[in-house]
Amino acid sequence: MGWGDLGVFGEPNKETPNLDQMAADGMLFPDFYSANPLCSPSRAALLSGRLPIRNGFYSDNAHARNAYTPQDIVGGIPDEEILLPELLKKAGYINKIVGKWHLGHRAQYHPLKHGFDEWFGAPNCHFGPYDDKTTPNIPVYRNAEMAGRYYEDFKIEKNGESNLTQMYLQEALTFLQSQHSKDQPFFLYWAVDATHDPLYASKPFLGTSRRGLYGDVVRELDYTIGKILSTLISMGVANNTLVFFSSDNGAATYSKEAGGSNGPFLCGKETTFEGGMREPSIAWWPGHIKPRQVSHQVGSLMDLYTTLAELAGVDIPTDRQIDGISLVNTLLTNTEKERPLFYYRGNQLMAVRIGPYKAHLWTWTNSIEEFNKGVNFCPGEEIPGVTTHNQTDHSSQPLLFNINKDPGEKYPIRSTTAEYKQVIQNIMPVIKEHLSNLKPGKPQLNFCDPAVMNWAPPGCDKNGNRCLKAPPSNLKKCVWDH
Amino acid sequence: MGWGDLGVFGEPNKETPNLDQMAADGMLFPDFYSANPLCSPSRAALLSGRLPIRNGFYSDNAHARNAYTPQDIVGGIPDEEILLPELLKKAGYINKIVGKWHLGHRAQYHPLKHGFDEWFGAPNCHFGPYDDKTTPNIPVYRNAEMAGRYYEDFKIEKNGESNLTQMYLQEALTFLQSQHSKDQPFFLYWAVDATHDPLYASKPFLGTSRRGLYGDVVRELDYTIGKILSTLISMGVANNTLVFFSSDNGAATYSKEAGGSNGPFLCGKETTFEGGMREPSIAWWPGHIKPRQVSHQVGSLMDLYTTLAELAGVDIPTDRQIDGISLVNTLLTNTEKERPLFYYRGNQLMAVRIGPYKAHLWTWTNSIEEFNKGVNFCPGEEIPGVTTHNQTDHSSQPLLFNINKDPGEKYPIRSTTAEYKQVIQNIMPVIKEHLSNLKPGKPQLNFCDPAVMNWAPPGCDKNGNRCLKAPPSNLKKCVWDH
Repeated sequence: MGWGDLGVFGEPNKETPNLDQMAADGMLFPDFYSANPLCSPSRAALLSGRLPIRNGFYSDNAHARNAYTPQDIVGGIPDEEILLPELLKKAGYINKIVGKWHLGHRAQYHPLKHGFDEWFGAPNCHFGPYDDKTTPNIPVYRNAEMAGRYYEDFKIEKNGESNLTQMYLQEALTFLQSQHSKDQPFFLYWAVDATHDPLYASKPFLGTSRRGLYGDVVRELDYTIGKILSTLISMGVANNTLVFFSSDNGAATYSKEAGGSNGPFLCGKETTFEGGMREPSIAWWPGHIKPRQVSHQVGSLMDLYTTLAELAGVDIPTDRQIDGISLVNTLLTNTEKERPLFYYRGNQLMAVRIGPYKAHLWTWTNSIEEFNKGVNFCPGEEIPGVTTHNQTDHSSQPLLFNINKDPGEKYPIRSTTAEYKQVIQNIMPVIKEHLSNLKPGKPQLNFCDPAVMNWAPPGCDKNGNRCLKAPPSNLKKCVWDH
Repeated sequence: MGWGDLGVFGEPNKETPNLDQMAADGMLFPDFYSANPLCSPSRAALLSGRLPIRNGFYSDNAHARNAYTPQDIVGGIPDEEILLPELLKKAGYINKIVGKWHLGHRAQYHPLKHGFDEWFGAPNCHFGPYDDKTTPNIPVYRNAEMAGRYYEDFKIEKNGESNLTQMYLQEALTFLQSQHSKDQPFFLYWAVDATHDPLYASKPFLGTSRRGLYGDVVRELDYTIGKILSTLISMGVANNTLVFFSSDNGAATYSKEAGGSNGPFLCGKETTFEGGMREPSIAWWPGHIKPRQVSHQVGSLMDLYTTLAELAGVDIPTDRQIDGISLVNTLLTNTEKERPLFYYRGNQLMAVRIGPYKAHLWTWTNSIEEFNKGVNFCPGEEIPGVTTHNQTDHSSQPLLFNINKDPGEKYPIRSTTAEYKQVIQNIMPVIKEHLSNLKPGKPQLNFCDPAVMNWAPPGCDKNGNRCLKAPPSNLKKCVWDH
């Protein structure tokens, strides 16, 4: 989902009344970012509070490449990472994930090995349908065991009809209601994959949007948020429950009109332009966050780690660099903290934002070969020297933008101006400090092997033998095109 | 001002709390348009309820050129046009214009000759400062006579400081309060030129926006709207006063980051892409328009003519084609009427919208010569075959977009699809009917002459002799570059 997909962020069809109301009742964050322009690294950063370059969710098979966790990925979230649910457990929380995990699908990487008590959802994206020969259908887990597979047991019809989002909603509501009766604090990571390609919505939503199928999906997602919030209210725990809505990367502009909107921001998913990482973000906590607040705090999904830990009264690890900052004061008193924001693509620091200024050290959309195949991360957009198809090194003289004035990153500030010199003088030491203190984690996304796919997930032998035979191992470096 | 300049339409800095509140208390129109992508024709259409091609606010000196009313324009609004204030007069209204007129600056074209009872403002855009030799400074009128000139008597400092918007606000408030005591119905056309280049704001607003000077201007405009609405409320006449906010064309993207934002829409002012004509529009009428309404009615500023006439209980002329439709039901009951929307550039019908579909018969941004001089109506945007620098005739096979799905006009619907064929089959007869019934008015914007400039406006001989000597007549066809 992109920044521009919400009515409150200017989507012209205004089809997100529940999210818009959530914003009206809470705090809207127009300057909030994911830690990465792609799903897996973004989610690993959210849950670890650390940049992918530190937690290992990157590849150095090639320079500045986006990598994630397809079915043949060998790696996953390292045991050394202390994930948010592990922290919250110390404060007595019960932790549940509903939806897509994406931090490694092999058994040792599963959510229940990393702090979650319950899981209903899938380890990977459900690209498909597959043939179960070269690639198995993605399993859906109920806790530690497979409950079925996408397309086979969890239907997604060719016309885009599927009840999956409703199932995920029901799973959330049931959890919330059962927790209420137990009076134990809870953390629900409701990470549905709706709006990701392939698009689907349940029958009551199909064909209802002015925007086509993508809009149907957004409308259903909006509906589910309304349901979750109204359930918290009717349970009487709204004043004691912080809800944060966001997305893990920008809209997939390469999917054209079926990929969502990044509003006035440049390019989309996979890029370190604003469209790739600026996220539609809302915090809601009646009685604590005042209604109708807008915060221009430069925020990151990694901040949820630090913020939630503070609110739960647990200390964050001190033996490692945590990139998230606490937003507790921001939420409660609408104050802002200046902080640098680092935009990474794979193993490369691409850009840095401080205040209104964003300096690009490197620019790249995608290779001209991929572009010529029709993969366009910036459709309709072309800014000479900015939306480059070569990996372009600007690090000796960064491309500088004031993104408050120029959210579309169209008008670089000329390097001869006093403004440029002043700003670069401030930014360069921050970059230098960041890089000199950086200890990259062991890259987890370097190796691929068809043998590690979801052939025989735990539990596949129950409910009839659903185990598939894995092919022989063929360990290779993964190829990351972008 | 552009569609994307309001917080409620997704401007990321969210600096328009009063306009956003106006929308929350009234009806927001995301699908509302000006009748032209340039100021003078747009305003002539608003006040006459008729397309510029009918009321004469166009030129046929060259094909598909935007024309307006610079100081050397000879023409103006024809006497035959029956303007909105003339209609409202029949219902006993008192009519006042505050701000920019732009329907001709020669005496016979003045507002007081065309239905307005009072005027405070200027006849033209205040491009300048001028030297009073080749071009006089623009006069500011108090009713039928000049009260002074821009830069000389009505200061605009080089740093962008000016009290003009505050003066125009005060003029509005004084009028509203004086009318209240008279108990006569009133029409206030509050047509300030703020946000137009050259940008200015009053001291309390200068330097206060996150967006730079343009943002300061928007903030001041937002403030003034808040003042006007709160004055109506405190006067106790809000329930009896319809307020409509809009803009006369899209943001001037050629001014780069100082030109405003058209949000997700393509290009800007001077073009017939959505960015040129989609306007940030809000209706407010407490007690009649329910709060928190969004209407996707395809609306036009010309509809104000028809709507206000109906509300005032006067008939619209029946001896001519009126292009506006009545939005009374839309406002009161949030119903929608299907209607074609015609996008003209000068003497050429460029595009038509029906429902979600927009068909381009012609595309043109600007000439490659102008573009190479640095005049760019679509900065950072380039859509092959769409943002053309040649005037490109698609009339035999229109470029078709679903602008609800694809507001950026990036993805033409392929002409081989059933959808294309079906839609074009519906649109073509509408175009044909429109063109076959069209009786173009006599073009008013063909001739220019330096002798007709504001050398010696009525009243210039009072308050010291402020009359300037006009040069000899030199009547020529005006040159319209775009």
